[in-house]
Amino acid sequence: MKKAFRLTAVLAAALFSTVPVVADEGMWMPQQIPDLAPRLKQLGFTGDPKIWSDLTGFPMNAIVSLGGCSASFISPDGLIATNNHCVQGSLQYNSTPEKNLIVDGFLARTREEELSNGPGSRVWVTVSVKEVTDEITGKVDPKITDRLRYQVIERRIKERTAACEKDGLRCNIASFFEGLRYYEIAQLEINDVRLVHSPPQGIGNYGGETDNWQWPRHTGDFSFYRAYVGKDGKPAPYSKENVPYHPKHFLKVSPKGASPGELIFVAGYPGRTQRHETYAEVKERTEWTLPRSVRRSKEMIAILEATTKGQKDLEIKAEPRMRGLFNGMKKNEGVLQGLLKGGILARKQAKQQELEAWIAADPQRKKEYGETLVTLAAMQAESEKTRERDSVLGGIYQGSSLLSTANQLYRLSLEIPKKDLDREPAFQERNWTRSKEGLERMQRTYDNRLDRPMLRYALLEAAALPEGQRIAPVDTLVGLAAGQAKDESAKKIDAYLDAFYAGTKLPEKEFRIGLFGKSTKEIVDTKDTAVQLAVALHPLSEANRELDKANSGKRTRIRPAYMRALLAQGGGLVAPDANSTLRVTFGRVMGVDPRDGMRYLPQTTLQGVVDKHTGEGEFNVPARELEAVKALRAGKKTPYFDEKLGDVPVNFMSDVDTTGGNSGSAVLNSQGELVGLLFDGTLETVASDFLFDTEKTRSIQVDSRYLLWNWDAVEGAKNLLDEVGIK
Amino acid sequence: MKKAFRLTAVLAAALFSTVPVVADEGMWMPQQIPDLAPRLKQLGFTGDPKIWSDLTGFPMNAIVSLGGCSASFISPDGLIATNNHCVQGSLQYNSTPEKNLIVDGFLARTREEELSNGPGSRVWVTVSVKEVTDEITGKVDPKITDRLRYQVIERRIKERTAACEKDGLRCNIASFFEGLRYYEIAQLEINDVRLVHSPPQGIGNYGGETDNWQWPRHTGDFSFYRAYVGKDGKPAPYSKENVPYHPKHFLKVSPKGASPGELIFVAGYPGRTQRHETYAEVKERTEWTLPRSVRRSKEMIAILEATTKGQKDLEIKAEPRMRGLFNGMKKNEGVLQGLLKGGILARKQAKQQELEAWIAADPQRKKEYGETLVTLAAMQAESEKTRERDSVLGGIYQGSSLLSTANQLYRLSLEIPKKDLDREPAFQERNWTRSKEGLERMQRTYDNRLDRPMLRYALLEAAALPEGQRIAPVDTLVGLAAGQAKDESAKKIDAYLDAFYAGTKLPEKEFRIGLFGKSTKEIVDTKDTAVQLAVALHPLSEANRELDKANSGKRTRIRPAYMRALLAQGGGLVAPDANSTLRVTFGRVMGVDPRDGMRYLPQTTLQGVVDKHTGEGEFNVPARELEAVKALRAGKKTPYFDEKLGDVPVNFMSDVDTTGGNSGSAVLNSQGELVGLLFDGTLETVASDFLFDTEKTRSIQVDSRYLLWNWDAVEGAKNLLDEVGIK
Repeated sequence: MKKAFRLTAVLAAALFSTVPVVADEGMWMPQQIPDLAPRLKQLGFTGDPKIWSDLTGFPMNAIVSLGGCSASFISPDGLIATNNHCVQGSLQYNSTPEKNLIVDGFLARTREEELSNGPGSRVWVTVSVKEVTDEITGKVDPKITDRLRYQVIERRIKERTAACEKDGLRCNIASFFEGLRYYEIAQLEINDVRLVHSPPQGIGNYGGETDNWQWPRHTGDFSFYRAYVGKDGKPAPYSKENVPYHPKHFLKVSPKGASPGELIFVAGYPGRTQRHETYAEVKERTEWTLPRSVRRSKEMIAILEATTKGQKDLEIKAEPRMRGLFNGMKKNEGVLQGLLKGGILARKQAKQQELEAWIAADPQRKKEYGETLVTLAAMQAESEKTRERDSVLGGIYQGSSLLSTANQLYRLSLEIPKKDLDREPAFQERNWTRSKEGLERMQRTYDNRLDRPMLRYALLEAAALPEGQRIAPVDTLVGLAAGQAKDESAKKIDAYLDAFYAGTKLPEKEFRIGLFGKSTKEIVDTKDTAVQLAVALHPLSEANRELDKANSGKRTRIRPAYMRALLAQGGGLVAPDANSTLRVTFGRVMGVDPRDGMRYLPQTTLQGVVDKHTGEGEFNVPARELEAVKALRAGKKTPYFDEKLGDVPVNFMSDVDTTGGNSGSAVLNSQGELVGLLFDGTLETVASDFLFDTEKTRSIQVDSRYLLWNWDAVEGAKNLLDEVGIK
Repeated sequence: MKKAFRLTAVLAAALFSTVPVVADEGMWMPQQIPDLAPRLKQLGFTGDPKIWSDLTGFPMNAIVSLGGCSASFISPDGLIATNNHCVQGSLQYNSTPEKNLIVDGFLARTREEELSNGPGSRVWVTVSVKEVTDEITGKVDPKITDRLRYQVIERRIKERTAACEKDGLRCNIASFFEGLRYYEIAQLEINDVRLVHSPPQGIGNYGGETDNWQWPRHTGDFSFYRAYVGKDGKPAPYSKENVPYHPKHFLKVSPKGASPGELIFVAGYPGRTQRHETYAEVKERTEWTLPRSVRRSKEMIAILEATTKGQKDLEIKAEPRMRGLFNGMKKNEGVLQGLLKGGILARKQAKQQELEAWIAADPQRKKEYGETLVTLAAMQAESEKTRERDSVLGGIYQGSSLLSTANQLYRLSLEIPKKDLDREPAFQERNWTRSKEGLERMQRTYDNRLDRPMLRYALLEAAALPEGQRIAPVDTLVGLAAGQAKDESAKKIDAYLDAFYAGTKLPEKEFRIGLFGKSTKEIVDTKDTAVQLAVALHPLSEANRELDKANSGKRTRIRPAYMRALLAQGGGLVAPDANSTLRVTFGRVMGVDPRDGMRYLPQTTLQGVVDKHTGEGEFNVPARELEAVKALRAGKKTPYFDEKLGDVPVNFMSDVDTTGGNSGSAVLNSQGELVGLLFDGTLETVASDFLFDTEKTRSIQVDSRYLLWNWDAVEGAKNLLDEVGIK
């Protein structure tokens, strides 16, 4: 309470004179923005708020998804800006032990030099969003079972999706507000994507794991792709004949960047938030899921580090996984910190109690929502009963790419005989190309020497499961049993793995791809050991999926009611939880007082890059950047110099509301110009995924001036400066 | 360059509108302050600058030294404010394994409850400072040897000291500006000092080693003594009959503390700075002395930790030494960081080159100073030749309290037959009482179990010395030799130590004190093993001392010339290096940008204390303080609340120029009111001891409001609030 007052007073005095400093919660659906016109006006926006809801106009039509990352078109020739950490797959695909693009970066000085990202790389442009709630959940017979209810809804979704997908469009029916609403989202899918520029690691991942989620930050987390299409202008797989895609709209890269106090908009594809989870659900995450995940990440990192040590080829193959494990671990530690020490869990509990009291206070509400919380609690309790087993089972599939591939091929063989609309969504024809590409792309990262220790780790977990939560097929195949001595289990597992890796040909690309679409008999007849494990695990997994479907059906009944209660209690305009669909959030460039006696300033500069430079490890600035700074200090002029800072800006903070998936998001000023790229948040506020912290939530962006200064002073990338219209 | 501009612009805009933000270098001699009137006026001081040079008036007469720490009178009844870390000896002296005052703190609610600090505790009040340069170094025959020159000067100093010391005064002839000037300083010496209040460790040392030298800081580093004198008002050893001392002047503790931008004065006894060392001297520290010291501290800490683990009585005995080792280690690491990474060494080199060029540019200068730098360099090179041996020898004396005691007793026996004025200064009669007290006080910290591993560590160093730098008597006594295998050396040392500790009775207080003043024969006849080692080492140590005296004589010729060159080149008013004499420094309450993108705010608050609380180790706030914060949050009023901060302030930063020895210094506002106590600096700026950093140097103070709030809301110490006149 005191802090809120204090922060407001101090910062407001320093930065603004009229608007109180509280971050605005909301990863808004574009169509919600016009309703926020009064708030935008209050923040100084003088434009037409409708530009943010017109997906076919400027600037929204320039905003794209890379699947897991966000990006945007910045030239008429399909040049795409995103984060450096979003192009790691492409760098890896194009790297060899002799030429490691992950470390050295890459710059194409001509179109011909641009490198294909390989199969599976996509750019999606959202072209329409349409509410279809009634079509999906309307008029479902209330008397049918939850399992049947799931089936009805799933069928409707598949039918609508099929009807929507034409002319190269990819469609997706997404649930919003816990299933209270459904929207049909249509996207143009471009599948020839090429690497144009990635700075070296010493710029693009400067600070590495040490600085990840931290401020002050000095990372040039930008990289560039180009979208290519067939000569007819339509999406086409990679071909030398393809030509650059000409987007209807593209963003102008601002040479002025963003300044403290400035209003900014962030448009992108935030992945997932859980702000509408119940207290019991968040409590389980706090007490079980997150600590377990942190522990597992640490253990897997240790195994991978020991495995790859000193072997360059393995290091390259393991890089994306390692980076993911580190990132997740650090984030989850931050979330736990926020939930516990930061008091988010306690606030969540208080909110739940308020909701319960609000429901209890009125007979009508009791009737309408009373059962909801009870049912959700019961479902939560039920799921906790087998969580050990279910998590370990999931870990086994995740542990081995061979097993998950065998499982995918086997399940596909079971689905192929069905009519397409009867198939499991993941196995419908619309996904076959991507699945096949996945089988091919696997070559980038797959290695027995990485797969085996991870599968071993997962099997050791299975060996340690308590009586009553055992995974019977694993026990049978490997020879494990509850209570078995650890050494004994390890011996059995090692023997099993010897046979497993000797008896599988799935690491061979041709063999793997050859099995795609084959019949169940043909697949089983391979007697491939990975297939055998997949087949053995299938009944248990299938039973789990059946249970999930029934639960899912139940959730489509219960959770919308819960959401209605929340909305009725809270009132006002509310943004739905992030669900990997296009969102717009806004806020201001500003620092924060992360703790008593300390302030994060809103911007960092080249001086900080140089100050952190140690010449090794995560803080190793490339010589050409150090030279460029030296030239600048010696008096060389640059248009990207910030007079107030007395230097070229590097990163800035803002109070926009974002989460994972927003990486690479365009940061726009009120004129829709690109002033930066979002790439991170602060560890102090990652728990905002569960409950938004209006005081301390901050995102981290790279300033467009750092990007342009790199092109200009470090790389001499005149071709790119020309292309984005900078003289 | 850029940073200076930027910092100035940003901070100046934020805090002040007219005065540029550069910290003022200078731990000024009080008599220099009136010459700084223009600068003080510029900083907003409207009073008479002469109050800072009048040592018998207000407020300077209230400023006292504790020997190694600074302090001040804050009541008419001799109540003294200093740092908590300055009263550790008293806490330890009064602790038992059952009642650990170091951890629990102490509060006397009546005069009767106040605890004697034990023998050796002193309070010194500086009463006069008089220049005596001519008397000390005037008219020395330029033809005599350096060794003789040393003797002449030393004799003059002893004679003047003897003449000055009367009426309970303690006098000291101190060298300033590298021997360019000498001053005679007379101090009243009070020797009955008692403990009045020390907060528990969870307040007084909150944050412990983790927060030491760091910001943001939340330490209640204050404690209180009382000075007692005989009924006649004159200093007297501890007696129940003694009465509180009534100082002529005392400071008023301000209930308003200090605010950002406010001008403050710090009066105290800074220990030692080396801003006038040559580049070669600083280089040696950087490359040899400091890294060695850091390594040795770490190794000794590890040994002491292993030795004391789980043994409460040993922990209490080792506490002051551990704290000293940790503190020194961290500081030295910071100094090294500043010298190397922070560029202080490079700047020192540049300054030296400038000086050399300045001298070379003029024949007269060449004649006057040309030889100086050459001679200093030669002396430096010479000393480096035996530095290994000399440092290890010093380490042996430091390692064992028994050895250093035996050495002291033996050397005293050699001096006693001489006339007092012919004795080595340390063994003159004026020091006998303190020496005897030291022998008694040793009981607090001495334990064979601590002494032995430290002596063992030092002997292992001696074992590893290279041929040509061996310590022959140690080799002979212990059976060591150059090139001996490590295991072999260790075995020999362990056997020697068995005999050493079995054959000494010096751990017994009565035996030890009984030898004080005895003849050489009597001492040698004890056949005490510690005495035997001291006697064996004596010839080498004596030879080293003789060499030091010759060098010292040479320095009294050379260094004043060097200093004259520096002053002539630089010009302007310059403060001499700190030398443990009374100084006044001034500056303003202000934060700092320690690195790019981050700002240390100038103040911390109770909220930060609570935020850091973990309930264990170094961050364990006492329950009664947590309760007091709770009451405050619940609406309880306190006069120590800062409306702008929205909380009670705890610590504040300022840009005053201080160093070790300033701990406990009174921080005064322009009216001479006590607004805080200085207790630390930031690690980023400890290298300022070698070259002042006008941008980043910051000291850390505890705000008087935190102190008063503790008395009021945490301890209910109405007696103390009444005594300092707070209603």
